[in-house]
Amino acid sequence: MPIIRVEMFSGRTPEQKRALVRELTDAFVNAAGGTPQSVHVVITDVDKGDWGSGGQLCSDKFPD
Amino acid sequence: MPIIRVEMFSGRTPEQKRALVRELTDAFVNAAGGTPQSVHVVITDVDKGDWGSGGQLCSDKFPD
Amino acid sequence: MPIIRVEMFSGRTPEQKRALVRELTDAFVNAAGGTPQSVHVVITDVDKGDWGSGGQLCSDKFPD
Amino acid sequence: MPIIRVEMFSGRTPEQKRALVRELTDAFVNAAGGTPQSVHVVITDVDKGDWGSGGQLCSDKFPD
Amino acid sequence: MPIIRVEMFSGRTPEQKRALVRELTDAFVNAAGGTPQSVHVVITDVDKGDWGSGGQLCSDKFPD
Amino acid sequence: MPIIRVEMFSGRTPEQKRALVRELTDAFVNAAGGTPQSVHVVITDVDKGDWGSGGQLCSDKFPD
Repeated sequence: MPIIRVEMFSGRTPEQKRALVRELTDAFVNAAGGTPQSVHVVITDVDKGDWGSGGQLCSDKFPD
Repeated sequence: MPIIRVEMFSGRTPEQKRALVRELTDAFVNAAGGTPQSVHVVITDVDKGDWGSGGQLCSDKFPD
Repeated sequence: MPIIRVEMFSGRTPEQKRALVRELTDAFVNAAGGTPQSVHVVITDVDKGDWGSGGQLCSDKFPD
Repeated sequence: MPIIRVEMFSGRTPEQKRALVRELTDAFVNAAGGTPQSVHVVITDVDKGDWGSGGQLCSDKFPD
Repeated sequence: MPIIRVEMFSGRTPEQKRALVRELTDAFVNAAGGTPQSVHVVITDVDKGDWGSGGQLCSDKFPD
Repeated sequence: MPIIRVEMFSGRTPEQKRALVRELTDAFVNAAGGTPQSVHVVITDVDKGDWGSGGQLCSDKFPD
């Protein structure tokens, strides 16, 4: 019943998200046990304009 | 001052969200006490392409 | 597959948490559909010394 | 390595978010120590139709 | 700068948590890119008495 | 009604948490408007053994 939550910059493709769900689920089971069927993964895309690091917006620090 | 947070698949109507806020608030007060005025509910819609279960994206497992 | 998360002051009994899980699950299904089997509830007890409101710690505002 | 997360009503400007990241980062360092470089801030805009208070949707309580 | 958050039943050993951090970080980088150095993982142990599934406390459904 | 959530290493004193709540609340109001009365702050202490960075547990990277 573990829940894995990922916050990352927006812009990943559906194929990358598909791989992310598969890889994170496998990683959890390998390290902590349980079954893949019980693992939930929730992905949140965060815009660089909503993420701050070191006191600055990432949209200012890392413009596209 | 309790905070209730709901993550669910996107697609509920405003009327369903209105009912959800009312019902969850009542449920909290019935079970745990306090006043409805103090309860916050924050709803997050999650796309099936951002939710994984059993190692697969829900957009693959449960296509619309 | 909805996930309901509750943050509330510490101190509820196991019986209150049992009722909370049951009532919140029913509330979700009544308002938004789905099956009780798919609903997860995660409860987080927060000490008054870790909760601030109006710029003050709740342990200062609402001493036991 | 602290992580600060803000949920607030949608509608703030990029300039307000820029100030928010700067001010919250400074506030953290002033009060709890550490360096600004290590502080992350993640902002989540919540629509009034996804936020409930006192059993009502904020879109009903506080229409624009 | 991705943040991975894991909620799971209490009881894993430090060695399992060490493996979990390593495996989840590798999984993220493999699937979504970026560098391991930028990945944060925050683990939350949840007691079975604070986790509900299908309307029941897990401490009732899955007693130790 | 904004909610500010802070995850940081365990070990801050009540006085530091008191200052944190006050400073974060003021920072929010200065940058984004609203009233201090409406701001909630929830602090979560995270043990170094539950926080990973760069693929390593912080309890390994930064032993006390």
